[in-house]
Amino acid sequence: MKSAAKNQDFIQNISYDSVIFGFNGSQLKILILEYHNTEYFALPGGFVKMDESLDDAVKKGVSQRTGLEDIYLEQFYTFGSLERSDPGVMDKILTENNLDMEKYGWMLGRFLSIGYYALINYEEVSLKPDELSDSINWYSIDELPPLMMNHKEMVKKALEVLRNNLDRKIVGMNLLPHKFTMKQLQQVYEAILGEKLRRTTFQRKMLSMEILVRHEKLFQGKAHKAPYLYSFK
Amino acid sequence: MKSAAKNQDFIQNISYDSVIFGFNGSQLKILILEYHNTEYFALPGGFVKMDESLDDAVKKGVSQRTGLEDIYLEQFYTFGSLERSDPGVMDKILTENNLDMEKYGWMLGRFLSIGYYALINYEEVSLKPDELSDSINWYSIDELPPLMMNHKEMVKKALEVLRNNLDRKIVGMNLLPHKFTMKQLQQVYEAILGEKLRRTTFQRKMLSMEILVRHEKLFQGKAHKAPYLYSFK
Repeated sequence: MKSAAKNQDFIQNISYDSVIFGFNGSQLKILILEYHNTEYFALPGGFVKMDESLDDAVKKGVSQRTGLEDIYLEQFYTFGSLERSDPGVMDKILTENNLDMEKYGWMLGRFLSIGYYALINYEEVSLKPDELSDSINWYSIDELPPLMMNHKEMVKKALEVLRNNLDRKIVGMNLLPHKFTMKQLQQVYEAILGEKLRRTTFQRKMLSMEILVRHEKLFQGKAHKAPYLYSFK
Repeated sequence: MKSAAKNQDFIQNISYDSVIFGFNGSQLKILILEYHNTEYFALPGGFVKMDESLDDAVKKGVSQRTGLEDIYLEQFYTFGSLERSDPGVMDKILTENNLDMEKYGWMLGRFLSIGYYALINYEEVSLKPDELSDSINWYSIDELPPLMMNHKEMVKKALEVLRNNLDRKIVGMNLLPHKFTMKQLQQVYEAILGEKLRRTTFQRKMLSMEILVRHEKLFQGKAHKAPYLYSFK
């Protein structure tokens, strides 16, 4: 990033930020970077080159900043308020990373930022901070550090969109083993929605959505209590 | 581009476009502009000033371009491909409107465009084309004229988002009288979804969503056939 970022290469006033939700079967977390010597915690983000598509820029940038390869990111909102930009924050990040103001000063301008989100199993990936950052870590959504600029608002909006679309998103997300019990599925919903659900209501709703195939029972203990296994159609 | 258009008030490389759905109780239409002497049909769109928020720019711009006041526009997607920009189209629009290339040449660049949509009752509004446009009209979604750039893709995406969110959006949208029958509600759904629905399934789903209050019956003919009236909670 240091060598690549030239004024003329990037579209001015446009950035992206990513909210990467991680899930391990029971807990929902978010990926946060910390910038060198600043105490600024932030969502992984970046800029768009004049000759690359927005989607390509996000895909490549998130991979470079986090070490995550080939995760599916989906756009959720574009943040365009005046208040969200804070030149002081970018100024400190540039200074602490010894980046030339002449060359990188455009980063202090006003930015509209396009938010993307992803939902992955955090036990199956390994992380690597980029050269601007001290660390990259998973934080529980209830215990986020103070985030810079309007990144907290971004997390809130991403979570709202994810929750509203969970019924449609759940099928393709690889958060469960190929075959799973209704209880496992309910645990995914409960962790993401942040609330307990009634077992009978949840089961009825899931079955009525006609997205599940029922398989054999999962025999563990007493046969008459064995739950059915399901997979997505 | 940057140096040639130094006096610009607008953010370079950012535009917005609006998909305004109109509905009259049975038919779904879309608002389309035609540019002077170009045969270009387009969604109403515009640019964002450096010192105004994205939402404010869209609100003001759509009002100026269409004559519609105070409609509620909601963001649905940001289009960021390389292919969507077409300098030839903008060139012709500027030329036919006798606009100075020195001053407006920046409009020929690459643009990321933020899509907004609205859904209003088209019988309750009056339209007024802006000075760039010959006409502004409602077109049935099945009979749209050929649209410029990627505006057809924008309409498709807006319709997809509207359909996916209809259960949540229907309540605040003022598309029905205060009290309405289940049949009237079903007609709204059918027009927007573009398909016929089964009466019993639709009624069961609507009642299970717990968004309706049941009132007195609507007495017209035979009393035992009178349908109940409902309103939104």
